Order: sequence, then C-alpha cells, then structure tokens
Amino acid sequence: MWFSRKGRLLLISLLSVVFLVDFYFHLWPVLMRRIGRDCGCSESREETSKLQQLFSHPLYLPQDPLTPALQHRLLDIHETNEKYMKRVAHLHRKEEIQKHNAAWNSSTHVTETTFNLSIPWLQFHLEISQDALYPRSSKTVQKLIDWMGNMTIIKADLTQDAKKLKGECDCEKIVKPSGTHLKLVLQFQDLGKAMFKPMRQRREEETPEDFFYFVDVQRHNAEIAAFHLDRILDFRRVPPVAGRLVNVTSEILKVTPNEDLKDVFFVSPAKNVCFFARCPYSCKTEYAVCGNPHLLEGSLSAYLPSHFDAFRISVQNPWKRAYTFTGKEEWEVNPSYCDQVKQTEPYTNMKRLLNMMDLAIFDFLTGNMDRHHYELFTKFEDDGFLLHMDNARGFGRHSYDEITILAPVYQCCLVKEDTWLRLRLLSTPEYRLSDVMRESLSQDRLQNILTEPHLLALDRRLQTVLRVVEACVQKYGNGSVIIKEKRKRTVPTHGQQRTV
Amino acid sequence: MWFSRKGRLLLISLLSVVFLVDFYFHLWPVLMRRIGRDCGCSESREETSKLQQLFSHPLYLPQDPLTPALQHRLLDIHETNEKYMKRVAHLHRKEEIQKHNAAWNSSTHVTETTFNLSIPWLQFHLEISQDALYPRSSKTVQKLIDWMGNMTIIKADLTQDAKKLKGECDCEKIVKPSGTHLKLVLQFQDLGKAMFKPMRQRREEETPEDFFYFVDVQRHNAEIAAFHLDRILDFRRVPPVAGRLVNVTSEILKVTPNEDLKDVFFVSPAKNVCFFARCPYSCKTEYAVCGNPHLLEGSLSAYLPSHFDAFRISVQNPWKRAYTFTGKEEWEVNPSYCDQVKQTEPYTNMKRLLNMMDLAIFDFLTGNMDRHHYELFTKFEDDGFLLHMDNARGFGRHSYDEITILAPVYQCCLVKEDTWLRLRLLSTPEYRLSDVMRESLSQDRLQNILTEPHLLALDRRLQTVLRVVEACVQKYGNGSVIIKEKRKRTVPTHGQQRTV
Repeated sequence: MWFSRKGRLLLISLLSVVFLVDFYFHLWPVLMRRIGRDCGCSESREETSKLQQLFSHPLYLPQDPLTPALQHRLLDIHETNEKYMKRVAHLHRKEEIQKHNAAWNSSTHVTETTFNLSIPWLQFHLEISQDALYPRSSKTVQKLIDWMGNMTIIKADLTQDAKKLKGECDCEKIVKPSGTHLKLVLQFQDLGKAMFKPMRQRREEETPEDFFYFVDVQRHNAEIAAFHLDRILDFRRVPPVAGRLVNVTSEILKVTPNEDLKDVFFVSPAKNVCFFARCPYSCKTEYAVCGNPHLLEGSLSAYLPSHFDAFRISVQNPWKRAYTFTGKEEWEVNPSYCDQVKQTEPYTNMKRLLNMMDLAIFDFLTGNMDRHHYELFTKFEDDGFLLHMDNARGFGRHSYDEITILAPVYQCCLVKEDTWLRLRLLSTPEYRLSDVMRESLSQDRLQNILTEPHLLALDRRLQTVLRVVEACVQKYGNGSVIIKEKRKRTVPTHGQQRTV
Repeated sequence: MWFSRKGRLLLISLLSVVFLVDFYFHLWPVLMRRIGRDCGCSESREETSKLQQLFSHPLYLPQDPLTPALQHRLLDIHETNEKYMKRVAHLHRKEEIQKHNAAWNSSTHVTETTFNLSIPWLQFHLEISQDALYPRSSKTVQKLIDWMGNMTIIKADLTQDAKKLKGECDCEKIVKPSGTHLKLVLQFQDLGKAMFKPMRQRREEETPEDFFYFVDVQRHNAEIAAFHLDRILDFRRVPPVAGRLVNVTSEILKVTPNEDLKDVFFVSPAKNVCFFARCPYSCKTEYAVCGNPHLLEGSLSAYLPSHFDAFRISVQNPWKRAYTFTGKEEWEVNPSYCDQVKQTEPYTNMKRLLNMMDLAIFDFLTGNMDRHHYELFTKFEDDGFLLHMDNARGFGRHSYDEITILAPVYQCCLVKEDTWLRLRLLSTPEYRLSDVMRESLSQDRLQNILTEPHLLALDRRLQTVLRVVEACVQKYGNGSVIIKEKRKRTVPTHGQQRTV
C-alpha cells in the first residue's frame, strides 16, 4: 500500500528530521573523531611548532657563545679528555684479560666497549658552564637523550645511598625517604652513566590527599617532565632526562655484580620479573616494580661529572618543610621570615636569593614539596646556578596547588626580570605553557608523559605565580620586586663580594 | 524542486534504512538503558525476595531446635550467665569508684554501663553448637549485627598479636602478614567485643596481578561479604560481621588506654585524623588509614567466647601455600597428594576431610588464597565444624579465578551432599548466587559492599566448582564423590572414633 502525496511528504519530512538528528548527534561526532584520529592533523601539527617559536623568541635567543669561555666552564677540556682516555685504556686492558679468560672459560661475558671523544655524555659534561648545565642552542642535549634511550647497558648497581644503608632501616625516623631506594645506577657501553627510576605509579593515579609529601612515591614521568619544564623556563638546571623501556632481566639482573641487588629480584604470580628495595620495605614486596614480563618503563637522568672532577655542595633550603607529623618550620608561622634570610649568608647575595625564587617557582609549577636541600657546583661560588635535581615527587596531584611552595616569592617579593618576562610570555596563547610542554614531552620515547589535567594545571599555576608577583609589585613597586641581573664575567675568586 | 515518483520512493527507502539503522544501533539501546535506570524495576524488586525464597527452600528449613540440646552447645548457659554477672558487678564497683573520683576531679570520664542477660553478644555465644556458629533460623544474628553497628564503643585497643610484636619487625620473614596489624579490638558498653578492620582499599580497586597473596591488603568489605556468603551457603562458620562508620577520634583515640596505639595517630595534610600500624610499617605513613575527617568505614566481626571459656585450636591447612617467592608445597606438584592426606590424622576421619572441601569451595568463591591455618573448638573434637575466620584477603580480583584454591576438591574428588545440593540450587536462575548475595549485602549499613563484577564473579566461580565436581563424578561415580553425612548426636568423649 502506497501513501497519498501528502502522506509521502510527511514521511519524507519525518525521516529527514530523524536523519538530521541522527547525523548531528551521532554520525558527525563519530566522523570528527575518526578524522581527528586518522589524519594525524592535531593542532600542533597544523600550526607551526609553538615550541620552535618559543625557542626562536628574542628571550630565548643564544646570547652566549655555544662553547663557553674557558674560565666559565665547569671542566677543563684537556684534563677531562685525558682522564677519559685513561679510563678507556684501563678498560681495554681489562677486556683483553677477559677475552683471554673467555678462551679458557666460555661462560665469561666479554663486552666490546667502543669509545670516542665526541660521545654525548662527555660533550654534556664539557658544556656545563657558570650559567647553566647546557647552552640554549646546545645540540648535545638531544644527542644525550637519544643516547640514554638507545645505548647498551653493561652494568647496573644500587646507588651509593642505598649501599650505605645496606638494607637497614632507621625506624626512629619517620622521614626516611620512601621509594628513594628503588633507583639504580646504569652504566653504558661507553662508560657513561644514568640514574634509573622505575615507573611506580600509573599516569592517571593521583597522590592521595592524606599523604605527607615525604612519603609520596617517586614518579619517573615527573622526573622527565621536570627536565622539559626547566628547559622551557630557560633555567637549564635539570640534567637531561629520557624515558626508556628497560629490560629488568637482561639490562639489570644479568649485568649487576651486586649480590644485594640480585637478591631483591623475584618472579611475580603473574610471571613478571620484579624487584623491590630492601629498605625500608624489608618485609614487603607489594612495593616492588615489575616488568611485563621483562620490560619496565623508567626515567634515565644523565649523570653529572663525578664529585672528584667537579665538587658540589648540598645546602639546606631555608624554606624546607618539617619532616614530621606536627612540626612547623619558622617560615610557616613568621610572615617576615625573608628579612631574616636576607641577613644570613649566602642570601645576603641577591643573586643567590633570586635563584631561590626561581627554584620556588619551578617547584610550585610541578607541585614538588620535597625540596629540603639544593646543590650547586663549588667552583662557581655565588656566580653559579642552583641545580634543580630530584624532581620525582612533582606532578603528584593535578587537582591541587600547594601555594606554600611559593612562600619564598610572596615572603621576599622578589623575582629575576628574565624569569618574569619568560613566565609572562608562557602565559600568552601563542606560547601557552601547557602547549609547549605537550609538544616538548611528545619528543620523548615514552608516551603521554603527563596527562592533560597535569598539563592544564601548569597554566593554572603559572597564573597564580603571576598574581603573586603582581601583588608584590603593587605593594613595593616594580623596581623593588622585578630585579634585573647584571652579567658579570669574572673568574670567581674566594671571598669576593658580588652584587647582582 | 520535488523529485519524480521513483526519486521519492528511493529517498523514502534510503531514509527508512537510515532510520532503522539509527534506531537499532543508537535509539533502542539508549531507550533500554533509560528504562532500566529510571523505573527502578530491577529484577530483585519486581520479584519477591530471592533471599527469603532461598531461606524458605527445604534445603534451608530449620531441622534443629532453635536452642540446641544442652550437650551440643559450646557453652553452659548457667555458667556463662554467672560469669557475665560477675563481670558486670566488678565493673559496677569500678564505676562507683570512678564516680567518686569524678566528684573530686571533673575531667575523669565516667561511663554508665548498662546490662541485661538478653544482650545479643551473650545470646550469640550461647547459640553456638556442634553444628554451626548459629542456628539457621536464629534471630540473634540480625540483632548482633544491629548491635555492632549501633552500640557505644567504650574502649579500643591493639590486638594481642600486635601487642606481642610491640612494633618490632622480623625482617627475615618476607611473609610477615602485612596489614594485619591495623586491626583493633573494640569494646562496647555492655562488655561485648568486636574486631575492627578499617577500610584500606576503594571498592573498585583490584589487587595488582603481580602481588603475592601474602602481601595483599586486608579488605573490610571482603570480611563483610564473606560472612554473608557463608550464611547463604548455609555453612554458618563465619562469626557475624557488620559494616560501620567509626569515629577514629572519639571511638578509638579518645577511648584507648594504650599509649602505643595513641602514638600512631596523626593529622594528615588534608586535616583528616589517621593512624598507622607501627609494624611492619615502622617508617611509613602512606599505609595509614584516615577518617574524613573523623569517620572511617570498617568491618566489625563479633568476638567468639574467650579461649578460657571455649578453647579453640589452630590447625595448619594441609593445602597451605609456600609463603616464599619461589617455594612450592607438595600439593602443588603431586596430583596424588590427597591420598597422603587421607591417611594422616585427623583426615582419616571423613567428616574432617569433607569440612576441608567446604572450606576450599568457600575460599575459591571469595578468591582467598591466604588460608594457612584454620581453627576449631576443641570441645566438639571431630564432630565440630571448622571456623571460617579471617576472610579479609578475599574479593581482591574479580577478573581472575585462582583454580588452585580448589585443589582439595579436585585432588580428593569429594564433596558433602548437602553442600553439593545447595551449590546446585544457587546456580539456578531462581536462586542465583549473585542475586541472593546482592540482596543479603544490601542489608548492611554500608553501601555497595561488593561491586557488580565481584558479584558476577561468584556465579562464574560457582559454575567452575560444579564442573570440577562433575568431572570427579564422571571419573569415580556419584557415590564415591558426593558423600551423605550421617547425623550423629552423641556427647563427644575423648579418643572416640567417629564415622561420617
């Protein structure tokens, strides 16, 4: 039976409406999602790279010669190369003996170690200057990251900290940094080293709000993200960090000479190879990390020159927190605390104080409350920069901003002009911090280093920093708050007083 | 412009197809979901209570007199009441002194303790018989659950286990039961006691597959769910358990005389009141449990009569697991292991062996691998039942069934006829295990004791039990596998041999 003309018209209209509704609510969104997924034309690809634009901005243009002047370098080139050549020769002799033994005993493992003077870790060490860990336009950083991601691991070991503890727990101290001792030193075929921190938390997990900062786990992705953030802020005070899938069996268990480390390996009920830290988890395996069955994500942080070659001192942060349940430090109860700090060495030197402001801003952006100490190279004295090491307790909670991390800034009302200009730049849509971070992190070998909420939290926190500084400016005036650093290029001598 | 007749027909056909596809794939499922959500007409509401139907089924009808015959009871009524009255009198004298002191010192806390002989915990103790912890038709169980959920808590303390350890860790043992020591004994106004296990894991969290069974946390909801399951299976070997929101400040911290317990309380960064176990978490607070800011969910398990009144022995499970990383117990490698067990006291007694099968089935359904020991009242000797205590490590993973928990059943090929009939009944749609469990759990004061995936896992595991038994029947015949228990009603005497 066929309808009348009017009926047909009505039916067509009705069906058309259904089709349009369906198209609008179901098909169109699906189509858009498909197109978005398949064509690979995300915003960052459609536009020119925001990150490249940022690094081309006048505030980021190379001012210094790529190779710093001799007197501003941390290491002496000739001395360093010579030392390295000696180590190479020593290893070659050792390998010859190994080869000789291997002819008699086929089970002996012989590593063919290859060397040359242009290896990334050596170049990285040579580029460290009074200004930063690497020059703005350094090509070495990317090489170093690729190197850490690819190089054959020939040895794994516990860190010196863990060795000192030797599995013993000091249970009197509730502040024993938990999780610290799952980090390992990995040595590469070319004698370079990196600090390995394994993945212990899934990206979408947030630190419970009841956790104290000192019991939070260390996050490998926070370590990676902190390096990228530090580079974007142009501090260049975090040693380069790369993500890598490490084979816990062939790249740790089989290449460690350390029996204590071998002892903490086990096969889990799910048949994955796992290891745990002997202290402070003496009786525990639930805090173990496991491969799948062998591969495990982790961060690799490039090692700095040894203490013998470039001594670093560790200085207690004047704004450090009380590592107890109830204790309060003076800065938490005394709003004029900065006046005291300003009168205390080494903070009588404005440069050092301004460096503390940079560190506070950096830690506030990552949400890291665990900055009890900072390090710096003794060679540069007060002209040197503060190292922004150990950032694995950042990025724990995207939904919460710990304003007290900014205490140095709102108590002293100071910020470097360079830092201030860059922070403002990163708050503009053209150079939005979350966008450049997303792009920068996408260069790592591991995927989704930070989840979107963590990236967006960076923008929110940046706004907070700007507001805090603006409030200071309103109170004390621009000139007293935003401080222009004078560049001073003298070879540092002991006892010399410096001004900013 | 209007199309030709053919064109119109084509358009109508096309639009009709689009409509039908849309209706089938989008509108119909949405409609179904809406209807399901809005009308509140879930299966259990439409029908009469499945749980009531189950308990009215001939397999569940009361066979025994409500009050068991004197000689089958665990406790002597007169003796028990007399003891209780003496304790009451003692407490009243103590209270008089307190009142007297309070007149002099207003800060002294005086509790007006009220008593009578019909209090639920006393009735519960008096109903324990040779058959089970409570009769099928007991009215006391619900009263006991209400009592635990409401009664004023006058004292909190560490358990005897925790007191023995006194905060020391035996780090040689990797099997130290983690999480055990967050449990507390709570005492009520009428001198009754319950074991409190706090919530340590969110309902939707699954135990990671790399965890060994002995490091898994204890789940308060598993403890509650296990009691309901045990009752539904008609074992009645789990002491009643109730969920309750406990105020950790007023109902634990303020009423504990134990300084060790007071010492582990702290206020978290989120301003919640928390406490942690001193051992094995000596240096750690991340395993603390926290109120919100004071209220904390937990399970309360009714205390059994004291060891002085009714001695229990703890017997090692012949199918216990190796509490090490790599060790294997004999049952794991020897399929004929049951033959050995059958020749070993006390399992030469078929009744005991059949009780072990019940326990294995119960543990397989909950997924509890941590049954290293079981307890039983010495008074009833081999005629007694096995207590199904400590079930907090069940319900860890809904997505995985650990078939080896059923080893006693598939190695011995035995099951009690009563149990078998009930398991089959619970596999029918009319009495589906997940449905009666859902209904039973909804009677607890806490919400969503088990998530849906955990409830559905019960049905899946029940099918596995049935398949395992059916395979046995096929191999050895019905009569050798499904064993009818003869009821024996004699007063037990020492050394007397029993048959099933």
